[in-house]
Amino acid sequence: MTELQILRKQIDQVDSELLNIIVKRMNIVKKIGKIKNFYGLPIYIPEREIFMLAARRQAAKKLGLSPDLFEDILRRVISESYLQEVSNGFTNLGSTLRPVVIIGGKGKMGTFFEKQLKLSNYKVKIFDINDWSNAETILSNALMVIISVPIPLIEQVISQLPILPVDCILLDLSSVKVIPLDIMLTKHHGPVLGLHPMFSPDTPYIVKQVVIWCNGRNYESYQWFLHQLTMWGMKLHCISASKHDKNMSFIQSLRHFSYLIYGIFLKQEQANFEELLLLASPGYKLELIMIGRFFQQNPKLYADVIISSKTNFNFIKRYYILFGNLLRLLEDQDKKEFIKKFTQVQKWLGIYAQRCVIESKVLLRCNQ
Amino acid sequence: MTELQILRKQIDQVDSELLNIIVKRMNIVKKIGKIKNFYGLPIYIPEREIFMLAARRQAAKKLGLSPDLFEDILRRVISESYLQEVSNGFTNLGSTLRPVVIIGGKGKMGTFFEKQLKLSNYKVKIFDINDWSNAETILSNALMVIISVPIPLIEQVISQLPILPVDCILLDLSSVKVIPLDIMLTKHHGPVLGLHPMFSPDTPYIVKQVVIWCNGRNYESYQWFLHQLTMWGMKLHCISASKHDKNMSFIQSLRHFSYLIYGIFLKQEQANFEELLLLASPGYKLELIMIGRFFQQNPKLYADVIISSKTNFNFIKRYYILFGNLLRLLEDQDKKEFIKKFTQVQKWLGIYAQRCVIESKVLLRCNQ
Repeated sequence: MTELQILRKQIDQVDSELLNIIVKRMNIVKKIGKIKNFYGLPIYIPEREIFMLAARRQAAKKLGLSPDLFEDILRRVISESYLQEVSNGFTNLGSTLRPVVIIGGKGKMGTFFEKQLKLSNYKVKIFDINDWSNAETILSNALMVIISVPIPLIEQVISQLPILPVDCILLDLSSVKVIPLDIMLTKHHGPVLGLHPMFSPDTPYIVKQVVIWCNGRNYESYQWFLHQLTMWGMKLHCISASKHDKNMSFIQSLRHFSYLIYGIFLKQEQANFEELLLLASPGYKLELIMIGRFFQQNPKLYADVIISSKTNFNFIKRYYILFGNLLRLLEDQDKKEFIKKFTQVQKWLGIYAQRCVIESKVLLRCNQ
Repeated sequence: MTELQILRKQIDQVDSELLNIIVKRMNIVKKIGKIKNFYGLPIYIPEREIFMLAARRQAAKKLGLSPDLFEDILRRVISESYLQEVSNGFTNLGSTLRPVVIIGGKGKMGTFFEKQLKLSNYKVKIFDINDWSNAETILSNALMVIISVPIPLIEQVISQLPILPVDCILLDLSSVKVIPLDIMLTKHHGPVLGLHPMFSPDTPYIVKQVVIWCNGRNYESYQWFLHQLTMWGMKLHCISASKHDKNMSFIQSLRHFSYLIYGIFLKQEQANFEELLLLASPGYKLELIMIGRFFQQNPKLYADVIISSKTNFNFIKRYYILFGNLLRLLEDQDKKEFIKKFTQVQKWLGIYAQRCVIESKVLLRCNQ
């Protein structure tokens, strides 16, 4: 047994070396961040990361170490490195003189943009409900007006706006895009942009987070702001407002409504949440964690999105009707039809099902 | 810009040191594995891991490195270390003489147990459909009989068994437990055990995987086998068969049926799967990956579990009815009631919702 103790001491020693190396790496990254900031380079350069990881995988392979393991570790180290680079601040790609006004800037997403903009040397003004009497003065020279208010207030807030400078960018951050864009385009005759940040504004890990954007008007006048988001490390995706809203019916409305139902059902069935977590398969555990997390958020935000349109109701109702139809498979114990329908989806998914298997393996091995 | 190049060269150098350290650690772990195997110690000793990680977190803190980062990296390294230790084989805690017979041993889970048992020096016999004529001979001296056949075949297979040695352990691996246990207890008068491995049998990461066990009869006669599972690194949970089945209605039946419906719905609505993956929030992406993964599995296994009992149908139907009732909230745009119901679940979840938030942060930061 002393043999075991000797080896464990060696592990302690190696882990201490490991720790020192990671600290060393972080310090180098800190310097890189400062240079990137100085030269106005984006934090996250996808090509560089892909190239670097491929080379590292090769190096691991040569030494007989699992390339997946080395890549997983480096990815985790890199994501932490980005945190350091973020705090260095960013080059300003717009203007340091004219203000960016955030209407509803006291909400979580508004606060997030305030912080990011200030890190990039923008002059930021938070506009709240008491500022309407001064609206014209506050907005008279605005570089950009960001609407970050709850969905039911968007129409009213935008209609109340004074006439904005014609080169002022009007943009909103809400989770729906068709209606806000219409309202903004009617109100303002300058550049209009719809943004939808697909992440929780309290995450410290902003690099690689997805931001969806929908063009309203005058792309050439606001493209610098999209570059600013890229400089912050975000991944941008452009899509039409109607496609955006269709995708969000899946990504948000149906999903969050299902979470609500599931939570109520757990309670109704007197499920034992702790027991479920203990007994869960790895996949179910992930799901249960996301459901538990959901119930720690602000229900108003979810209600606003889900109840925002009749389209959502019809969409979710179609899902419900399908559920009812498929329930008959179970009632009739119709395994053949179950398998047939399963196989149809499998075919329809094509290569994506395989891709999901690969990604799920990464997911599961990194969350043991 | 040469400054940046110099720093990047330093990163390359540090990463090469990092790689060497991890390889070094793996080599020490290999030696530890051999000693553990020699002395019959389990691979995974929860207390040691918890103690070690706590000490490492402290060390990271002292050097100003994020303790979460260092813990995440070590966890990933440790999970890979277990892979190495597993391949060293295990001490046999039962018998190397009398055979373990796996009925249905050609299925995935049967194959998994065959491999594990052989790594632990058990004599394993695979019993398949052609062996019935020799059943008495094959089973006459069995140490243990493992039933690993599809649910609809369990009753028939067990009833066909010859009389087993009275000290032979009869156990099954199916995803339901009440009915198989009843059948086994009626057939056999010796020790009876119901096991449910909560993981995919093709995962290489078996350490920390959950195995649920339900006592049939004579715990004292089969406890050595539970210790054997612990030695393989598995986490055991004991529960009554009826509680097991109730929990599985959530963990498996409703979940997998919902996946099927969701897949059919995606197809029906002509969703763009690739676009959904691109636009997804981190949480939805995890979910979509698990759904895609589902459709790469064998539908028969799912159909068997879901259609295995009328109880499941009634359970899923109650969920469907609840869905219908809650749909009215959306039709009536009743935000107040939405928020009320949400808050009720939040209260019911209590501390678990917060725990889920914490665990979700780990999940999301490790899967950027």
